[in-house]
Amino acid sequence: MPNIIVIHGPNLHLLGKREPEVYGKLTLDDINARLEALARELGAQLRIEQRNGEGEIVTLIGETMDWADAVVINPAAYTHTSVAIRDAIAATGLPAIEVHLSNIHKREEFRHKSLIAGVAVGQIAGFGCESYLLGLRAACSIYTNSSRS
Amino acid sequence: MPNIIVIHGPNLHLLGKREPEVYGKLTLDDINARLEALARELGAQLRIEQRNGEGEIVTLIGETMDWADAVVINPAAYTHTSVAIRDAIAATGLPAIEVHLSNIHKREEFRHKSLIAGVAVGQIAGFGCESYLLGLRAACSIYTNSSRS
Amino acid sequence: MPNIIVIHGPNLHLLGKREPEVYGKLTLDDINARLEALARELGAQLRIEQRNGEGEIVTLIGETMDWADAVVINPAAYTHTSVAIRDAIAATGLPAIEVHLSNIHKREEFRHKSLIAGVAVGQIAGFGCESYLLGLRAACSIYTNSSRS
Amino acid sequence: MPNIIVIHGPNLHLLGKREPEVYGKLTLDDINARLEALARELGAQLRIEQRNGEGEIVTLIGETMDWADAVVINPAAYTHTSVAIRDAIAATGLPAIEVHLSNIHKREEFRHKSLIAGVAVGQIAGFGCESYLLGLRAACSIYTNSSRS
Amino acid sequence: MPNIIVIHGPNLHLLGKREPEVYGKLTLDDINARLEALARELGAQLRIEQRNGEGEIVTLIGETMDWADAVVINPAAYTHTSVAIRDAIAATGLPAIEVHLSNIHKREEFRHKSLIAGVAVGQIAGFGCESYLLGLRAACSIYTNSSRS
Amino acid sequence: MPNIIVIHGPNLHLLGKREPEVYGKLTLDDINARLEALARELGAQLRIEQRNGEGEIVTLIGETMDWADAVVINPAAYTHTSVAIRDAIAATGLPAIEVHLSNIHKREEFRHKSLIAGVAVGQIAGFGCESYLLGLRAACSIYTNSSRS
Amino acid sequence: MPNIIVIHGPNLHLLGKREPEVYGKLTLDDINARLEALARELGAQLRIEQRNGEGEIVTLIGETMDWADAVVINPAAYTHTSVAIRDAIAATGLPAIEVHLSNIHKREEFRHKSLIAGVAVGQIAGFGCESYLLGLRAACSIYTNSSRS
Amino acid sequence: MPNIIVIHGPNLHLLGKREPEVYGKLTLDDINARLEALARELGAQLRIEQRNGEGEIVTLIGETMDWADAVVINPAAYTHTSVAIRDAIAATGLPAIEVHLSNIHKREEFRHKSLIAGVAVGQIAGFGCESYLLGLRAACSIYTNSSRS
Amino acid sequence: MPNIIVIHGPNLHLLGKREPEVYGKLTLDDINARLEALARELGAQLRIEQRNGEGEIVTLIGETMDWADAVVINPAAYTHTSVAIRDAIAATGLPAIEVHLSNIHKREEFRHKSLIAGVAVGQIAGFGCESYLLGLRAACSIYTNSSRS
Amino acid sequence: MPNIIVIHGPNLHLLGKREPEVYGKLTLDDINARLEALARELGAQLRIEQRNGEGEIVTLIGETMDWADAVVINPAAYTHTSVAIRDAIAATGLPAIEVHLSNIHKREEFRHKSLIAGVAVGQIAGFGCESYLLGLRAACSIYTNSSRS
Amino acid sequence: MPNIIVIHGPNLHLLGKREPEVYGKLTLDDINARLEALARELGAQLRIEQRNGEGEIVTLIGETMDWADAVVINPAAYTHTSVAIRDAIAATGLPAIEVHLSNIHKREEFRHKSLIAGVAVGQIAGFGCESYLLGLRAACSIYTNSSRS
Amino acid sequence: MPNIIVIHGPNLHLLGKREPEVYGKLTLDDINARLEALARELGAQLRIEQRNGEGEIVTLIGETMDWADAVVINPAAYTHTSVAIRDAIAATGLPAIEVHLSNIHKREEFRHKSLIAGVAVGQIAGFGCESYLLGLRAACSIYTNSSRS
Repeated sequence: MPNIIVIHGPNLHLLGKREPEVYGKLTLDDINARLEALARELGAQLRIEQRNGEGEIVTLIGETMDWADAVVINPAAYTHTSVAIRDAIAATGLPAIEVHLSNIHKREEFRHKSLIAGVAVGQIAGFGCESYLLGLRAACSIYTNSSRS
Repeated sequence: MPNIIVIHGPNLHLLGKREPEVYGKLTLDDINARLEALARELGAQLRIEQRNGEGEIVTLIGETMDWADAVVINPAAYTHTSVAIRDAIAATGLPAIEVHLSNIHKREEFRHKSLIAGVAVGQIAGFGCESYLLGLRAACSIYTNSSRS
Repeated sequence: MPNIIVIHGPNLHLLGKREPEVYGKLTLDDINARLEALARELGAQLRIEQRNGEGEIVTLIGETMDWADAVVINPAAYTHTSVAIRDAIAATGLPAIEVHLSNIHKREEFRHKSLIAGVAVGQIAGFGCESYLLGLRAACSIYTNSSRS
Repeated sequence: MPNIIVIHGPNLHLLGKREPEVYGKLTLDDINARLEALARELGAQLRIEQRNGEGEIVTLIGETMDWADAVVINPAAYTHTSVAIRDAIAATGLPAIEVHLSNIHKREEFRHKSLIAGVAVGQIAGFGCESYLLGLRAACSIYTNSSRS
Repeated sequence: MPNIIVIHGPNLHLLGKREPEVYGKLTLDDINARLEALARELGAQLRIEQRNGEGEIVTLIGETMDWADAVVINPAAYTHTSVAIRDAIAATGLPAIEVHLSNIHKREEFRHKSLIAGVAVGQIAGFGCESYLLGLRAACSIYTNSSRS
Repeated sequence: MPNIIVIHGPNLHLLGKREPEVYGKLTLDDINARLEALARELGAQLRIEQRNGEGEIVTLIGETMDWADAVVINPAAYTHTSVAIRDAIAATGLPAIEVHLSNIHKREEFRHKSLIAGVAVGQIAGFGCESYLLGLRAACSIYTNSSRS
Repeated sequence: MPNIIVIHGPNLHLLGKREPEVYGKLTLDDINARLEALARELGAQLRIEQRNGEGEIVTLIGETMDWADAVVINPAAYTHTSVAIRDAIAATGLPAIEVHLSNIHKREEFRHKSLIAGVAVGQIAGFGCESYLLGLRAACSIYTNSSRS
Repeated sequence: MPNIIVIHGPNLHLLGKREPEVYGKLTLDDINARLEALARELGAQLRIEQRNGEGEIVTLIGETMDWADAVVINPAAYTHTSVAIRDAIAATGLPAIEVHLSNIHKREEFRHKSLIAGVAVGQIAGFGCESYLLGLRAACSIYTNSSRS
Repeated sequence: MPNIIVIHGPNLHLLGKREPEVYGKLTLDDINARLEALARELGAQLRIEQRNGEGEIVTLIGETMDWADAVVINPAAYTHTSVAIRDAIAATGLPAIEVHLSNIHKREEFRHKSLIAGVAVGQIAGFGCESYLLGLRAACSIYTNSSRS
Repeated sequence: MPNIIVIHGPNLHLLGKREPEVYGKLTLDDINARLEALARELGAQLRIEQRNGEGEIVTLIGETMDWADAVVINPAAYTHTSVAIRDAIAATGLPAIEVHLSNIHKREEFRHKSLIAGVAVGQIAGFGCESYLLGLRAACSIYTNSSRS
Repeated sequence: MPNIIVIHGPNLHLLGKREPEVYGKLTLDDINARLEALARELGAQLRIEQRNGEGEIVTLIGETMDWADAVVINPAAYTHTSVAIRDAIAATGLPAIEVHLSNIHKREEFRHKSLIAGVAVGQIAGFGCESYLLGLRAACSIYTNSSRS
Repeated sequence: MPNIIVIHGPNLHLLGKREPEVYGKLTLDDINARLEALARELGAQLRIEQRNGEGEIVTLIGETMDWADAVVINPAAYTHTSVAIRDAIAATGLPAIEVHLSNIHKREEFRHKSLIAGVAVGQIAGFGCESYLLGLRAACSIYTNSSRS
């Protein structure tokens, strides 16, 4: 039964209040509830955190590296600007799944490039809340495959 | 019950014989079998095709536009070079889910840019065969949501 | 009386079903009928073909090089990606008129650059169906001028 | 019966004296005569002006905005450098047809980009004097279509 | 009477001690005093905060979104690097006025580009302390106009 | 009591008639009236001119250099293309305030770069007519500070 | 005795009719005859194919991967645009020799970059028909060295 | 005895008043006097003009094309922005010598590129007033050589 | 006897656990012990801090500016992304020595550019723990030279 | 019987000692012996030289221009940086064959561009010692063809 | 009476034999003779050297720095690639005049940029042998002006 | 006891005479004396050489490869332009320490990129003469560590 840390990046605490035409009406609590439900179904243990600070996310990743088997992270704005979070993921050596509510490849040019992708197992973008759920599935699937072999 | 066309792009017929350190040992038949199994579970109807030609994929998309409710496509090499497939997806107006076996954002620079992303609902990359399965789930979820509303 | 091959590139068979806010409601048959009518008026002989494949267009150009006096081509998506069609036009040595339904210079950045322009006599873009008709006039005018001198 | 302002940009008063291998031997008077003849045939009213100054063209466009139904403009060198003429066309809200004697997409790199294209209905380039005539036809066709609807 | 949050970005607490040839001798307290005086004159209510952390500014913007009618922000170094603050401003939907002590367009190349500008009403740069005062006036003027209509 | 020359660049004589969704309904006369009113309040002497030609603006700046204490200029389209106006401002040595009705940093890519900024004291953009009024205040404030010291 | 597949890319069937100042007067049959003669001399078995379609070349490479010991390929226009052919070569794992009639590094800028080179053993360009013959020698030499060790 | 038109571009009428640390204290009249003196020595006939407008320079070049044997031009700011002056020089077919007071290759990046250079015989930059005198010598030398042969 | 603040940037608290093939097995405590030992030998007073947050480093630099004579900083990931730390160093006016465990110029392209270098005395990269020791020596040497003169 | 100068560029005297995983174990003497043997077979006269200095290679090319009928050159590192060797080859007017041991198009980005290619007949890269032998064959073939015609 | 070192860069010893359509038929001896004649007329003392090696030119500049009052240098190919010669000129502190036979700004893109220009007084390009003579005049004029003041 | 070759690149023989505001007043002899003193202290054997020619440095590196245990090199201008020196260092397989008197990352843009860094252990820049001394310490430390293990 894998331990999975889910990290919500900056501004995601405002979800539902924020640009609804881009992200829909769901709040972060809604998403977390769905994640917990699916985790129970898949037999995973979740820790879910939201942080606005780049350094706080770096610290969080370092702190959970001994507990967690995988990271599901929506780096939000830091996707495009943070080498520090990239380095933190590389340092833990944990498999990371990068998720995005919107399809970042369809938005402003500066959102097409992900600094996180270079150290992530994979990326899921564009499915709203569903991106998180698919990410959780992917994380469990990776855990199952690696513990099997 | 949604009709979903799954399109495998160029060279994917060689899967399993091809660069196993990048893509794993699964053959295309293995992937298709898993897709069919999941489709049964999710109550979806699949049509699965593999094409090596850009124009053939364009033709295929045009032909299935009346039958299909969604497209799950791994454009492979054409991800980075085909405006024609992009235009075909835009022309059908069907929701398209772009999937990739490998995390294209970690590979050669020229594979970071997807011409397809601009017209796709979302992108799933880096989970091997699992990318297709997650893509199928996403397609069904989109169908359910849109037919509900 | 000039022989003119009119080539419609990929996805143009979907015309009328496709992004009407960009291209209008005309179907390819409508355009072809208008072309035939104008050809009769101008005393030209037309052969009209639509192809989705880059290689098919290359083959078509090679096949008609002995019959045709000029080429009116809407390369559609291949405008921006095909060196092969460019080389085919250069190889035939026939005057080519490049036409586009929409004004490609106003659309996405990647549609501003035409690989075909470098080997075409001229370019007409942005007038919908009228672009083809103006292109046919241009082709006839070039034929008349060159056979005169 | 549409009123159409035809604007010849900088250096076009030298036509016929200038780089004949690029533009042919026609003078501006020759072109204007052909334009007048075609206008009579198509039932259009023309005003034809040549200006060397960017600001003069801006002023001219502003002055004729109440009289003209469409603009046929060969911005010549200003095609590639003038945001002011672009803004003037946008300000009038009149349909503008951009014409070029030579195929600008085949010439020096800096001539490939048109600042005017972003606000023009369409572009016709590469047919010598014929570019103007096709442009006039396009202008009349646009007028007819819009006054019909 | 509008509520306006004034945000001073990183290093602005060092003002007066810092590169005086670029920014002058005023301290942050001096600027704040002038802002308060002008606010009284214009009938505005101010909250003034300085933060060094990008995440802290994101948090601050989120916290004041219900109280504030407008934001006057000098993002300082984060102007050029922070997508997170940009997203926070977009999320609140409040009008934001971007101010800079120095004319950023005259300094190092990397300071010419503002990530904040894309979501701000306007930008005022180069007038030292006066930039803030003009920004406050702009904020009040926007409030007056929008509450009038 | 400072003498201030206010320069309106190309197409601004069309204000009010022009793209109202971008610039609002105010005419140039409305703006000038507000400028005159504020000038009286601030004790400044104004000269206000509008020019469509780049060279005319260069000439105007040269002519007023002995009379004026500061320049408030909206270079409009020339902001992005005119080295000559930049050089004229540098040549006079007068403080120049660059103003823009719209936030140029939010518009087309080619409007993000100001050639004028490199020689201006500061830039105010995005506040419509208010940009001019803030610019006039800035000009007076600079005059007061420099004549005091 | 090595089995070698020789692949001629798009438009090469027009050789001899095509831009003779660039490629000379030899037809494809002439080249093939010389290749066959040299193959006999070197003790190699040849299969020679020409294809205009990118997908057709991908298919061809896949089909001959079990028979062939090496590939001699002139990708022609696809050299610069085809990721699919690159992937096909990588998938077969066969040594590929890239040949070009002309020195692509001396032609238009867009012909300087080869997408094929990244997966080829080596490249021979600029010697007309001789490029193929040298390529065949190289293929045999590689076969001899690898079967020896 | 050659006829030579000397053209001073925008802002050069302010010479001596303008950025003396870059251009020295000489006025335009000083330079013109030295040019006249050297012309007498070399047996050349001069016409000297200064213009601030791009279009005015275009017109001037067109007007003097029948009289002049060569052009000595300091395009000043238009060096870097004017395609129209470039086209005017090309249209006249007269040898043009491009001169600059300062070494443009040492100044701001945007001054390194000359649009005029592509149609000029040569360029002389960096010697202050002496640049004009050397340019006049070059013009006479070209005239002598071409009339000799 | 100089006071020197040593700043370890983000993720350096994970040292020894992190990508050992790049950074070796030393922990941050090991490095700090060696720094303290060398400081005693060189007669320097150290304060050593590690921070994950960009804003925290900015705050730290501001706080120690009165105590410290020099800064030895390994900005880690912030080397490439932080204008704020750059500005903080510039604001303090203290000599800063930039150190890196690995040779950043040999790693990913985005690590080649240091935003800190523009305000640092010098840079030492690639010698593992030794980079810090050499950096401390450099700091002492600068202190000695400047206090001597 | 052609005279051919073979030039080995910088560091090639270290061959065999140098990065064997890239270039193999052959020494320069081994290569030269094979070249001499093939030259005897083909009836060519060789002069073989190795130089480390760019200027020395320039001088060498100039010195042998009267004796040599062709140049086979491996410019090594100077391939990517030397305009002087390019100019030397252009100056002699001799046909030059550019050879490389490794496939430069597969190595670091900065090795993809050859300054020599623009003046060479052709390029052979990636076949180790065999590149030289193929280059010698190409040189003899060119000599035979040109002396025949 | 100034001492002037004239330096001819790589390949210039081949002048007259080399690309006569670009540089004319003059040999280096012809140019040197004209330079000596003009030097006598202007009262200057010349030392004239030609070098093919970048390092040799660096050494030469260093050696003559005590004797020479100015440098007239045609860096030829090194214009575009040599930081070392640039540094040598900067190190001597002597005024340097950069001359070119051809107008480098009209040739291949890579010849447009001069690394030498950044440390030269001025540049003269495009007048063949005359470029040297004008350069010598400029050098003497600079000497006269500086020794006068 | 390690043998260390210290290489001074082009123009460093002029040190002390050269741009003292950038490099200080020390001569090369001063630096060498300090290096010798420190070498004695650290128990190292030095060979110190200065070369102006790129090829000479390549030759020097090749010659000392059997004697030396490490290279301390200040490539000066060749840092930014020499692939040949890079290849020479790679060929010897010796650890190389790159040193610079000035902080190259703070100077002209073209000095920010080091071609040498890609093959060096590390880089030390900005500490004047001290850069060499720190480099020598680094070289000895590397030698000690590698001979220990």
